[in-house]
Amino acid sequence: MADQHRSGRGRGRGGRAQRRERETQASPAYIRRQIPFFELLSEEGLVKLEQQADWLIQEIGIEFRGDPEALRLWQQAGADVQETRVRLPAGMARSLCSTAPSCFTQHARNPARSVEIGGTSQVFAPVYGPPFVRDLEGGRRYGTMQDHANLVKLAWSLPALHHTGLVICEPCDVPVSKRHLDMVYNHLVYNDKPFLGAITEMSRAQDSVDMARLVFGETFLESHCVIMGNVNTNSPLMVDKVVTEAARVYCGAGQGLVAVPFILSGAMGPVTTAASIAQALAEAMMVCAFTQIVRPGAPFVLGNFLSSMSLRSGAPTFGMPEPVMSNLVIGQLARRLNLPLRCGGSLTASKLPDAQAAAESADSMLSTALGGANFVLHAAGWLEGGLVTGYEKLVLDADRLGAYQVLLQGLPLDDNALARDAYGEVDPAGHFLGCNHTMRNYESAFYVAALSDSESFEQWEGGGARDAATRAFERWNDLLAEYEPPAMDVALREALDDHVARRKSELPDAWY
Amino acid sequence: MADQHRSGRGRGRGGRAQRRERETQASPAYIRRQIPFFELLSEEGLVKLEQQADWLIQEIGIEFRGDPEALRLWQQAGADVQETRVRLPAGMARSLCSTAPSCFTQHARNPARSVEIGGTSQVFAPVYGPPFVRDLEGGRRYGTMQDHANLVKLAWSLPALHHTGLVICEPCDVPVSKRHLDMVYNHLVYNDKPFLGAITEMSRAQDSVDMARLVFGETFLESHCVIMGNVNTNSPLMVDKVVTEAARVYCGAGQGLVAVPFILSGAMGPVTTAASIAQALAEAMMVCAFTQIVRPGAPFVLGNFLSSMSLRSGAPTFGMPEPVMSNLVIGQLARRLNLPLRCGGSLTASKLPDAQAAAESADSMLSTALGGANFVLHAAGWLEGGLVTGYEKLVLDADRLGAYQVLLQGLPLDDNALARDAYGEVDPAGHFLGCNHTMRNYESAFYVAALSDSESFEQWEGGGARDAATRAFERWNDLLAEYEPPAMDVALREALDDHVARRKSELPDAWY
Repeated sequence: MADQHRSGRGRGRGGRAQRRERETQASPAYIRRQIPFFELLSEEGLVKLEQQADWLIQEIGIEFRGDPEALRLWQQAGADVQETRVRLPAGMARSLCSTAPSCFTQHARNPARSVEIGGTSQVFAPVYGPPFVRDLEGGRRYGTMQDHANLVKLAWSLPALHHTGLVICEPCDVPVSKRHLDMVYNHLVYNDKPFLGAITEMSRAQDSVDMARLVFGETFLESHCVIMGNVNTNSPLMVDKVVTEAARVYCGAGQGLVAVPFILSGAMGPVTTAASIAQALAEAMMVCAFTQIVRPGAPFVLGNFLSSMSLRSGAPTFGMPEPVMSNLVIGQLARRLNLPLRCGGSLTASKLPDAQAAAESADSMLSTALGGANFVLHAAGWLEGGLVTGYEKLVLDADRLGAYQVLLQGLPLDDNALARDAYGEVDPAGHFLGCNHTMRNYESAFYVAALSDSESFEQWEGGGARDAATRAFERWNDLLAEYEPPAMDVALREALDDHVARRKSELPDAWY
Repeated sequence: MADQHRSGRGRGRGGRAQRRERETQASPAYIRRQIPFFELLSEEGLVKLEQQADWLIQEIGIEFRGDPEALRLWQQAGADVQETRVRLPAGMARSLCSTAPSCFTQHARNPARSVEIGGTSQVFAPVYGPPFVRDLEGGRRYGTMQDHANLVKLAWSLPALHHTGLVICEPCDVPVSKRHLDMVYNHLVYNDKPFLGAITEMSRAQDSVDMARLVFGETFLESHCVIMGNVNTNSPLMVDKVVTEAARVYCGAGQGLVAVPFILSGAMGPVTTAASIAQALAEAMMVCAFTQIVRPGAPFVLGNFLSSMSLRSGAPTFGMPEPVMSNLVIGQLARRLNLPLRCGGSLTASKLPDAQAAAESADSMLSTALGGANFVLHAAGWLEGGLVTGYEKLVLDADRLGAYQVLLQGLPLDDNALARDAYGEVDPAGHFLGCNHTMRNYESAFYVAALSDSESFEQWEGGGARDAATRAFERWNDLLAEYEPPAMDVALREALDDHVARRKSELPDAWY
């Protein structure tokens, strides 16, 4: 890591912040899963879905629109290209996908926070994309660049988030043509975990890679993944230039791409879940194949975002059993392709951080975790079908992510865990409260959920009878008050400031 | 079912209630699981836990206190009985357990509501035991017999509850010596799903069986399970007379027993989860063995209730990763014993039906469902570590249970589900909203969660910006307002009235 010293430690900091940083640093950079995957479908069922995906790729084909260079690359690689429709002969998609790494490292500015994506590693990142934010005091409002910076700081402070994503909210007070510069800047300066780059326009993707190059160094970037773009296909069966251009910029520079079919079953895919899963597989495989034409071996994450809908209104629903099954099944399919997977998250249609939000998010996220998703955007902070980032929701979700982290590490079964010595100390009908085995293990025995109240009713009432959302409001305010940025070399920060200022002066103010 | 006609249909009823009853009747009486079990531990891990349980039974032994008849039965069966300590030679516990059925039917007053308990069947029942109730309007207060009747009516009205349990709340306004009569009466008259009988005292267990005999008929009861008792061991490694007497009454009459070690790890068992699971297995196996001495072939459900604790206060915590793992592991162990399993539920330490309650309950209950629990008490309504029955919580949980029911039925993969015909109708970049395949499948495609709001923000705000708890308050009030009891023969109801009146006149008022 030739240039990594450039982000080395700087000035000292206060006691609480220091403690907070120690906590964050002590927590693992990502999850190394120790438990089996949950295999929902049998071999026969999986083969059916794969055959359907292959049929879509071979017979129906995928539209690649708006990027003639993409069609040229497909043709050159031997695809059947009719106008903008691309069909691949049997086996070609799988063969192209096979050069993508089954697991890769995304390097963070702080080497201790680098993550592995793929295999049995699991990485949690916050919500991506909401134009609105909500908190208990300020209510629902458009997100601003101040909100974005706050949310990056919170994501950095929460040990259960391993990656900070990018658009934790849309900073709607800054022109669209420029906001990517500030967002990438926030993730580079207020944070030292890995993050994503912009994709909305080819030059914005390029800006993101350029800023990463400034921080990580040109040589390092050549052979290491330090930034990724996250793109959606235009389901059904269409890929537009946002995807192919992002693939050309990110993968062309040896960086990563996450490609995610977003399918609301019954609208962008068939209303039956199995068919929507197969379609998503076909679309994501085609984007993977494309990235490997651009640069064989480029890091790629197979994405899936599937939602059900309300029978009353046709509005999307979240945390329902259909996408829960999809989270489990796409995990199986991705493993069979040897590709890292992004799916799921703590999803909900609820407007508030209430019981609906928590139940839907828990079912959505626990199935995501059990299904083996390697990279989970939207793991914390998502409200209102992704339209709103909730400050309270962010810290509530993170609290549960910590629990899933413990679950994924599995059940210890060594001699200490079996505790035969405890029965030498405690007789039947006795109690284990003060025994040596208990004292020896007490501090590490149980997950501590910061926002779960387990006090007696009387204590809780005496403390103001606060509900979970109220406690969450206090927690994120505390976290922000205690926040101090991770150290960064002053010259490096100035170089970033200069870069952002220069690019802003070159770009027009545009709001689209 | 010789005597079943005695509970036949009676008078007509109103439109809404009729519709509600149709809904309830149309829903399955219990879940026939179609998806694989989640196998958390390997064979090696499971054997370790079984060896530990065997070691506890053979070397440490279990205390059986307060019931000389139980010790006599153990001695007669060949156990090593030293004062009140019972140890079994290697293999004896497993051998005795092997006569218990791996699956049995608990018959309901309405034959269409009878449930199978064991194998791949799963049965959800409401919370059991809280002395307090809480609702949005009335706040937290002692439960009354009126609350108990309300809660039985609600449990009967909710299609996702397959069984109504017994003590949905403690009716604290009726003497302890008499309240079991009213509770059993409520479950027999306001409900026609299966339920449980009392266990707190031998005569109360007998009263429960007698009332069931009145309704189901003496002959039917002889050869069919229509009622069960649910008992806790006195962990660690103690079984008191409440358990052995209930076993003698229920199993003696060919009825069922559910025996549940309640272990707060670090207090009633070692602080490490693996050891607490093994201890629970040993305790429950010993109760099972005892029931099979009383009556070989008596229906038995192996129970498990394991909780973690707060490191700050030592208070129990719920929905945490340690009991989540326990739910999965005990499922594996019960299947290896060929015994039906009770564990888990929608558990939480929260005082309110808020985000904490919903998140903890969801993780607790989804793992319960995936782990394969055959009988789930506390599946709905539990608040505050089991001290409080929440009216709103009851209907919120039931809404999620419906989702788990869909999940457990698995993903359809037939030709209709694969929807190849839909791609004949819809081109790439089109949409599936109005296509034939969508129209044909729309109504059955997705689970409908009654309490999940998926409206737009503007619609939701226009509708009063109600949170999930507020909607739940309205729902349970609606359900109660629409409630009409399932039909019951007038003479049978009068016989029950007479029986309760007679027994109440015989019993003293006692408050313990």
